[in-house]
Amino acid sequence: MMASILIKNACLLPIDESMSIIEDGWIHIEGSTIQALGSGMPPQVNGAAVIDVDGDVVMPGMVNPHAHLAMTLFRGLGEDVDDRLFRYVLPMERKFVTPEMVRVGTLLGALESIEAGVTTIADMYYYETEVGRALDQAGLRGVVGQTLATFDPPDHRTMDEGFALVEKLVAEFSGHDRIIPSIAPHAPYSTDVATMARVARWAEAHPGVPVQLHLAEMDSEMEWCRKHHWLRPVAVVEKAGLLINGLIAAHCLHIDPFEIERMAKADVRVAHNARSNAKAGRGIAPIEAMRAAGIKVGIATDGPMSGNTLDLFSQFGPVSMFQKLLGHSRKPMPAAQVIRMATLEGAQVLGLDRRIGSLEPGKQADLIRINLSAPRLQPVYDIYATLVFSGMPVDVQDVMVGGRWIMRGRNVESLERRKILRDAGQIATAFKAEMAKIDAAG
Amino acid sequence: MMASILIKNACLLPIDESMSIIEDGWIHIEGSTIQALGSGMPPQVNGAAVIDVDGDVVMPGMVNPHAHLAMTLFRGLGEDVDDRLFRYVLPMERKFVTPEMVRVGTLLGALESIEAGVTTIADMYYYETEVGRALDQAGLRGVVGQTLATFDPPDHRTMDEGFALVEKLVAEFSGHDRIIPSIAPHAPYSTDVATMARVARWAEAHPGVPVQLHLAEMDSEMEWCRKHHWLRPVAVVEKAGLLINGLIAAHCLHIDPFEIERMAKADVRVAHNARSNAKAGRGIAPIEAMRAAGIKVGIATDGPMSGNTLDLFSQFGPVSMFQKLLGHSRKPMPAAQVIRMATLEGAQVLGLDRRIGSLEPGKQADLIRINLSAPRLQPVYDIYATLVFSGMPVDVQDVMVGGRWIMRGRNVESLERRKILRDAGQIATAFKAEMAKIDAAG
Repeated sequence: MMASILIKNACLLPIDESMSIIEDGWIHIEGSTIQALGSGMPPQVNGAAVIDVDGDVVMPGMVNPHAHLAMTLFRGLGEDVDDRLFRYVLPMERKFVTPEMVRVGTLLGALESIEAGVTTIADMYYYETEVGRALDQAGLRGVVGQTLATFDPPDHRTMDEGFALVEKLVAEFSGHDRIIPSIAPHAPYSTDVATMARVARWAEAHPGVPVQLHLAEMDSEMEWCRKHHWLRPVAVVEKAGLLINGLIAAHCLHIDPFEIERMAKADVRVAHNARSNAKAGRGIAPIEAMRAAGIKVGIATDGPMSGNTLDLFSQFGPVSMFQKLLGHSRKPMPAAQVIRMATLEGAQVLGLDRRIGSLEPGKQADLIRINLSAPRLQPVYDIYATLVFSGMPVDVQDVMVGGRWIMRGRNVESLERRKILRDAGQIATAFKAEMAKIDAAG
Repeated sequence: MMASILIKNACLLPIDESMSIIEDGWIHIEGSTIQALGSGMPPQVNGAAVIDVDGDVVMPGMVNPHAHLAMTLFRGLGEDVDDRLFRYVLPMERKFVTPEMVRVGTLLGALESIEAGVTTIADMYYYETEVGRALDQAGLRGVVGQTLATFDPPDHRTMDEGFALVEKLVAEFSGHDRIIPSIAPHAPYSTDVATMARVARWAEAHPGVPVQLHLAEMDSEMEWCRKHHWLRPVAVVEKAGLLINGLIAAHCLHIDPFEIERMAKADVRVAHNARSNAKAGRGIAPIEAMRAAGIKVGIATDGPMSGNTLDLFSQFGPVSMFQKLLGHSRKPMPAAQVIRMATLEGAQVLGLDRRIGSLEPGKQADLIRINLSAPRLQPVYDIYATLVFSGMPVDVQDVMVGGRWIMRGRNVESLERRKILRDAGQIATAFKAEMAKIDAAG
């Protein structure tokens, strides 16, 4: 027996080709799947739970194509410090990242994501099977990438150990409906060509397992690539044979027109982390030019130590403003395109657009309900501008993934909020003590 | 009989010189005034209403030093269009701005401001007595500036008529405890030297009436100043004798080091509108350099047609990120300084820092209570970083202005929310029809 749900009296944003807006819309869900949608009088569906959303917006759940959810537990540590990656992040990770820390941090991140209407997250971190389990428990959809790196990360000493973790992850989630295992070489400078080439061979033998990496993000990365290969990062990845169809490349700040052409041709996808990049003072990724060349670009949060929040609303302003600043005009990155990137295009980045990213018959019922009655959102002249420039996570009322409500009336039903916050608080106390030690050591 | 209030068990952020954080703090208010504050065991105050805030943050109410509140009614109109000032804004204003529109739009803006913990707003618009009355009704503090302009604005045809409106405004609010009348020559290009000189003479004869203007904001302004005066905007203002102590200059994007020196010497104050400037693709004001030169800079929203929201939380990220981008480093504009600009420094910009902007005995009790229990805000390592990078208006629980609660438990007690939203909706319907006509005319 599949549950039937009929949502009516909605302002539907299906995110179709024309970005149409269906006032007075309805949508019919059977089990995990969207059956039909339309405007005007909804059909009679025997036995369906009918939900009148009273004019609220119903749109696809948002897709966050790059995050390190467990880093919620580092959020706000070492802000405004230039050398924090090597001063704080890597030493703290080596000392504190355990399966339990990853589990608790990911649950905290999942809670925040659901409360913000994010339904699919691509994560890359350590002990990634824990991430997959936590996202499964949360009822979210995830692309979970086991990180591989040469800087003595918390969960593997050698690449053989790292690949063993990847194999374990793939074995655990192979065939899972919502959790997709992924392999995540950290970055060119932190894996080098040999490892990236090994990943490329492995990926070829495992079609359907997405590859994620950080790319062209930092000045120090540019220097490393030049020093060791006389090349820029995209060329180093290409040299390793990893500039492959479907590669999910996060950041891509230092990208020139030749690289854009090459990436477009290879069908590399980009996860844009506007806030994270800007907070680090690193720069602005040329996503307007990338999209013009046909590269799919999604809106991502990065880890909460870098971007602080895991909602996409906080990214909308920066994503739009940064391109307008680059173009010295109001025109670049119009609001409807921002919402498209947050949904369908994010799904395309992850190679999931046949299943999610828009409201269409046959697709998974991943959708959110947004209420626009706050004074800050009124009046509404252009629904996309309202969402992009005035929307906030608190406006999201209900969240459904694969036909299952995981938040209703802002209550996350799939997770134990109080316990997660208590567990996170305990871990944070230990971190505070360690930070004090690092600072005392000077 | 003055009411006594004792707030205890607070994380107090007084915004003093050292930006100290008083965990386990208390604050005692008598009538409109802060009597005392401290940490540990609170004093016994006979007859005081004792409020246990359960560890929540208590900090000064935020100061928004540049807004056009009534433009809430234009929010989201004509987004992503370059020539919208001349295509939409000015024609719509000429047609639709009436005392009633200003009243309703300002009330909507006041509602949003209170819900976001903003307690003082410097506004400049038309029919400004309506703005003063609406802010008074809302229980807010305001610096209300009657705009003077030569582009045939809605409420005056000549400068004599404009100055008559200023005189009327001053007469109505002279001596008012919370509403301070102000004179607002629109900008150099929209007033010219003769009018600015007349304002300078008038201001000299009316000490205590602040002068507000838009300055060095647009490329077209730069061109106008060069074409008509062979000068840059700051020099045009100086030529008119208006580069005076206490001048509140909004925007200040196109400012070079010589101008910074001159503005600092004159003690000109700056209202920084990060989102508005970036959304227009105009650029980034060099506020780090201005502040280093001793210029006081506040964080402002601009009108909601330009910046969309009237809360300062939405500005915090951009304010910080933009300076980090300019400096290509994480270090510029650290989080504590952002909060300082949003409170004490904003009060300094408006010349009100002897009365408001920090929690100190003898100052007005303008304060807000912020709850940090949302997953997005956890854990808290650095309270200022938490507020700047993860805080949102919904976290503000209670708002007090001059000892009076105007919001409690997120319920704005001074305004009729439902009526304001209904009135705003009716006006917006007329605007939509006019927009359609403008677009149909091409």
